Amino acid sequence: MTVSDCELCTGTGGRVIHDDGRLRVVGVDDADYPGLVRVIWNAHVREMTDLASAERAHLMQIVFAVERAQRAALEPHKMNVASLGNMTPHLHWHLIPRFADDAHFPGPIWSERRRTTPAAILSARRALVPALFEALARELTAMT
Amino acid sequence: MTVSDCELCTGTGGRVIHDDGRLRVVGVDDADYPGLVRVIWNAHVREMTDLASAERAHLMQIVFAVERAQRAALEPHKMNVASLGNMTPHLHWHLIPRFADDAHFPGPIWSERRRTTPAAILSARRALVPALFEALARELTAMT
Repeated sequence: MTVSDCELCTGTGGRVIHDDGRLRVVGVDDADYPGLVRVIWNAHVREMTDLASAERAHLMQIVFAVERAQRAALEPHKMNVASLGNMTPHLHWHLIPRFADDAHFPGPIWSERRRTTPAAILSARRALVPALFEALARELTAMT
Repeated sequence: MTVSDCELCTGTGGRVIHDDGRLRVVGVDDADYPGLVRVIWNAHVREMTDLASAERAHLMQIVFAVERAQRAALEPHKMNVASLGNMTPHLHWHLIPRFADDAHFPGPIWSERRRTTPAAILSARRALVPALFEALARELTAMT
């Protein structure tokens, strides 16, 4: 199922780290949030409860595999995991590693900006991202 | 595991609809979002990937049973599902039925407020909540 005006049907939604046919895992190049990952169901499905039970279980297994890899690579203070899709109603999960010094902490990343994270700290975090994405690609391929 | 300064260890976090010992489902009386539900892991656990695989599957099964009941009762435009916990790092999921006329749509509920939903619309939605919570209590008990 593909919808011509849906940006997750017409585009990848980020740099594709893994695609198993049913879903893809993409890295998002976000200036404030290095290591932000989205897990996107490939077909244009609106809600988690529109999936069959086995599809739902598969998607969440991948979501939490991503969380595990992000925690191992980045050691975030907290993980934020969300499926919203109000603007793009095509099932996707945001996996956002959060830090006490990040731009919105302790607010959600969609709340008012609170600070600018020091550039050196962001650079140090960003330097860990390639290894995270490589580890993710390996681990998710091994799971398939 | 209980932490004395954690509000989800010392309080229920809402009106308890269901508690199976491992987790509880609570209704939140939110002025803008009638039918908002939280699913809270009872023990003080920080992240989904701190749970055992079977615990994680159980929690998500309940989360999606709640989503299914909310969709049936309220017919939201979109469901928002999120585990954040930056302020209260005790595992809990927000299940938020969203409508095109709600206070923040299409932004997340944590973004800037965009409008006031007409009182009559909010009242009509609020009137559906008791039946939703009763249905949820029945269905979740039947699943246990």
